[in-house]
This record gives sequence, C-alpha cells and structure tokens, in this order.
Amino acid sequence: MAFETRNTEFAARTFDSFNRQTFMHSIGALIEDIEPGKVTVRLLARDDLLQQHGFFHGGLVGTIADNAGGYAGFTLLRPEDSILTVEYKLNIMAPAVGDEIVAIGEVIRPGRTLSVCRSEVYAVIGGERKLCAAMLGTFMAMANSPDHPHDAGRMGD
Amino acid sequence: MAFETRNTEFAARTFDSFNRQTFMHSIGALIEDIEPGKVTVRLLARDDLLQQHGFFHGGLVGTIADNAGGYAGFTLLRPEDSILTVEYKLNIMAPAVGDEIVAIGEVIRPGRTLSVCRSEVYAVIGGERKLCAAMLGTFMAMANSPDHPHDAGRMGD
Amino acid sequence: MAFETRNTEFAARTFDSFNRQTFMHSIGALIEDIEPGKVTVRLLARDDLLQQHGFFHGGLVGTIADNAGGYAGFTLLRPEDSILTVEYKLNIMAPAVGDEIVAIGEVIRPGRTLSVCRSEVYAVIGGERKLCAAMLGTFMAMANSPDHPHDAGRMGD
Amino acid sequence: MAFETRNTEFAARTFDSFNRQTFMHSIGALIEDIEPGKVTVRLLARDDLLQQHGFFHGGLVGTIADNAGGYAGFTLLRPEDSILTVEYKLNIMAPAVGDEIVAIGEVIRPGRTLSVCRSEVYAVIGGERKLCAAMLGTFMAMANSPDHPHDAGRMGD
Repeated sequence: MAFETRNTEFAARTFDSFNRQTFMHSIGALIEDIEPGKVTVRLLARDDLLQQHGFFHGGLVGTIADNAGGYAGFTLLRPEDSILTVEYKLNIMAPAVGDEIVAIGEVIRPGRTLSVCRSEVYAVIGGERKLCAAMLGTFMAMANSPDHPHDAGRMGD
Repeated sequence: MAFETRNTEFAARTFDSFNRQTFMHSIGALIEDIEPGKVTVRLLARDDLLQQHGFFHGGLVGTIADNAGGYAGFTLLRPEDSILTVEYKLNIMAPAVGDEIVAIGEVIRPGRTLSVCRSEVYAVIGGERKLCAAMLGTFMAMANSPDHPHDAGRMGD
Repeated sequence: MAFETRNTEFAARTFDSFNRQTFMHSIGALIEDIEPGKVTVRLLARDDLLQQHGFFHGGLVGTIADNAGGYAGFTLLRPEDSILTVEYKLNIMAPAVGDEIVAIGEVIRPGRTLSVCRSEVYAVIGGERKLCAAMLGTFMAMANSPDHPHDAGRMGD
Repeated sequence: MAFETRNTEFAARTFDSFNRQTFMHSIGALIEDIEPGKVTVRLLARDDLLQQHGFFHGGLVGTIADNAGGYAGFTLLRPEDSILTVEYKLNIMAPAVGDEIVAIGEVIRPGRTLSVCRSEVYAVIGGERKLCAAMLGTFMAMANSPDHPHDAGRMGD
C-alpha cells in the first residue's frame, strides 16, 4: 500500500526519534529506508547478539520488527503526535542466522488513534534474503505529545 | 499451576542454556528463579537500554517475556530436547520505567511438542512492582536435539 | 484481580448489550456470571456448532473468549461508553469437546481508552472443566458512544 | 506467494473437509476459491449473525479468517495429514458491515509440522471491498491423521 502523509518532515523526524533510542545504538541497528507508511530497519550480526544456538536472539528479531512497524505508523502521524506500541505478535518462522537481519514494516491500517502495522523480517546471507519472521501489531498515537521535546512548541500547528 | 518434571537437572540446564545466550550477557539480564514450569528473569536499568522517551526499550520487555516463558517450558522437557519460540504476543500496558524490569514466565499448557506459556512483566521502582506487560506464546520442543552439545551423548537416555 | 466500577448498572448493561447480539442467540450462548472486571460466557454443545472432527468449532471458542474478555472490560467503563475489540490472540490448547464450553474473561489492565483482558476457555465433560484455550486481547472504549441507543440521553452524566 | 503442492486432490479435499463443518453450514459460509496455499471464504449478511451494534459479529470475522488461513495451509499438506489451529491473532480494523464479508487466507511459511498463514478480511458493500481485519496464525499438521475417515486407508501412501 502507498500512503500520503501531511507530516512533511516524516523522514527527519523518524531518524531523530530512532537516534534517541539508546538501545538501538547499543545493538548497532540502523534505519535503511523511510517512506510514508513503510520503514526498513537493519541489524548487523555481532557476537554479542546471539541466543544459545548461535542465531540472532529472538528478542532482537522482535525488537526490529516492532520498531520498523511502529515507525512506519509514525511517518503518517501529525508532527505533534508520538507513537507507542500497544501490542504485537511475532511468528518466528526460521532461524535468524546470517550477516544481518532486516525488518520491513508497513502500515496496513492507518488511524487517528490506532494504527495496525505489519513487519516481515528477513535473514540475509551472502546478499540473499530469507523470510524468518512476521509481525502484526497495534500502535497508538499520543495526540499532542510530540516525540521530541523541541517539537512541543509546535503543538496545535 | 504447579508442575512435576522428569528433568531432574532442569535448573542447571536452564542456567546453562541462558548463560550461552551472549545477548543476555550484553544487556545484563539475570535469571532470578527457576521452578518446574516457572522462570523469572530480571533486567536492571542501564542508560544503553532505552527507547526514545527514556523507558526500557519495548524490545527488551519482549526479550525477557519471551525468555522467561520459553525457559519455563524448557524446564518441563526431557533432557535430550531443546526449545524454540514459535510465536508470542506481547501487550505493553504501561511504560517500562524503573530500577529494573522482571518477567515471570509460566507454562499454562505443557505438551510433548508444543507448550503454551504466559509471562507477566513488572517494572520495579523502589521495590514496588507494577504490571507493565503480558505475553502469551507458543514454544516448540526440538526432540532429540539437546540444547547443549555435551548433552548429545545422552540422547535416547 | 478485583476491580471497583463506578458503573453501578454494569450487570444490567452487560446483559442488555449481550442480548442485542443476534449471533449469540443463534448459537445459544449465555452469560453465566458478571462481576466488575470479570464475565463468564457459556455455550452448550449442539450438532450445528461443530468443525470437521466433531469438536466445537474454533471460531466459537474464539467468539466466547472474545466476548467474555470484551464484556469484562465493559463492566469497568462509564455508562456513556461502549467497547470494541481492537485485537485478540487465541491459543487453542486442546480439542473443545464436551457438553459445553465456558469462557472466563478478566481485565488485567483497565484503561480509559484501552483495556487489556484475558480469557480462559474450558471444555466441560460430566461437570469436569478442562482448559482448552487462552486469549489475550485489547479492547477500546468508545467514549460518549453508549452501547444502547436509550443511554444516549445520559451522555455526559 | 505461489506454492506447489504434491496433494493433487487438494481442492476436493478442502471442500470435503469444509463441508463436514456443521457450523459453517449453520452460518452459511462458502468457499469461493481454492488455490495451492490460498483459500477464500465468504459469509453473506444475515440478521442472526450480528453483534450489538448491527455489524457482523467479530467471532464470525475470526471464524472465516481462521478457516481461510487454516485451509490455505491444508492445501499444501500430504493427503494423509489433517490440520489444526494452534493459535491466531486477529486485528479488527473497521466495522464488518456490508452485504458479505470475505476472508482471503494465504500461507506465508509452509512447514512439515507448523505452517504460518495470514488472512485478510474484507467487508463488501455494493461490490466494493474494504479491508476490515487481518489475521496471523500458526497451524499444525497432524501427520498420518487424515481429515476424512475414508482417507485412512491411504495412510502411508
């Protein structure tokens, strides 16, 4: 699905919000792409991100699936709103093993209060993407509660 | 619910498996308690574990909820089996903010192949626990596929 | 958990709303009990409610789990609000086979806008209850949008 | 995604199984289309299928979403296997109101034991489809446990 957004600075605002997540820095996650209603997040393999069998930890698969979906929703909100994860459901379909994992999040139903988003997570080995997880989640706009403090002055624009 | 397990070394095996998760070391997560069908995981607050509003990152709430639930299931498996997360659903009900977060995972339906487990995650401030998330998930036993390599010799015991 | 409600007619309003669901009449579902934050729904076995192996159809397990959870949330709302299901996740853990199935829905996190509720569904054979399904879901209060038309006059009370 | 199936009679077997669900008869649900890995189920509006606000009951939205997804998985199984719903998660995104509702279920990850499937449910008014719900679920193959008794003789083919 393609969406229009009245939030003209959606990309800058999404990067800015993502960059204020210290945890994303800790694990080395990166935003690869931002479009209205669609965000791609990458996570490169590192020895400190594994579970007991040597795969990417499932918690990280969930983390980037949730983030990609939530920020996809965020791109369609008004500048004076921020977004929270209400809930998500994640199916892990194959071991997340490879050079990196990539989550592509998309809005399937934008809403003034609630947005429903979907993510697919791929494990990448030697440039080849293999679907390893799928997420379906609900995200809530916090009206007039801007994500970044300096947006507060714009409330009600 | 209270369960019996034929896996007499369930606690040692659970610690051992948890300790082989490099990601749990990276974030400083700890197992607080292990009983048959019930596992508690703690995560202490740290500046590098936050999301954009200064709360524990939701990905970490999911991580410990999933781990507590999965290991709760693991305690009831046979020594020659390991466990994988098939899927989980997480509701985040309040900001995960405080000195630490604690996930209590419990089996609600043990099974030879599939186990259904539930976790509750509490945010702890000044010793007081507040429910901040709930998980319901499905976990799969990998028969004759021991979690730790040195258990392989025991297969079929 | 026990809850207090300012909705003094919560039981009458819940019965009234339930009774306006023609589908619940069609299948013969009944409310067994209503407390603040907790609702029990029963469905008696009938030959026209089965799936291909002769069990209660899974769609009906979901129906009463969703209804019990949603009405549990409804009991805690203001009289001028109604409730909608945002989403739910259902684990079917055992065949729903027996004389009846019973869903017990409970609020685990009440909220002004969103409530998180949980249901357990039991299959009853010869008076004995066996857990066959678990639900975790999110429900949304429609503020100032009363469930029953004749409550409209009370809006803003 | 397009799939191949070694189950040459997948369409006949799916119709046959669907037709043995007495509950689907009761509500008047119909299979509209069957392809390998994809099944479409329709439900026509009727006065006895409603919830308290006059929409299709959410339990029915879940019923056809679950059925379309589960039978999508069933088309890819071996003839000697049947399928069970392990769990599903349903987001209801808009009121299910119209002349009929249609669920399109698709396999996103086929598996020998577990299949992950997705459904989208549309409300149809005057021929126009509007997305009203999305499902993501897990389904389990019951190996050598044919769906229909007369397939039992073929076990191990």
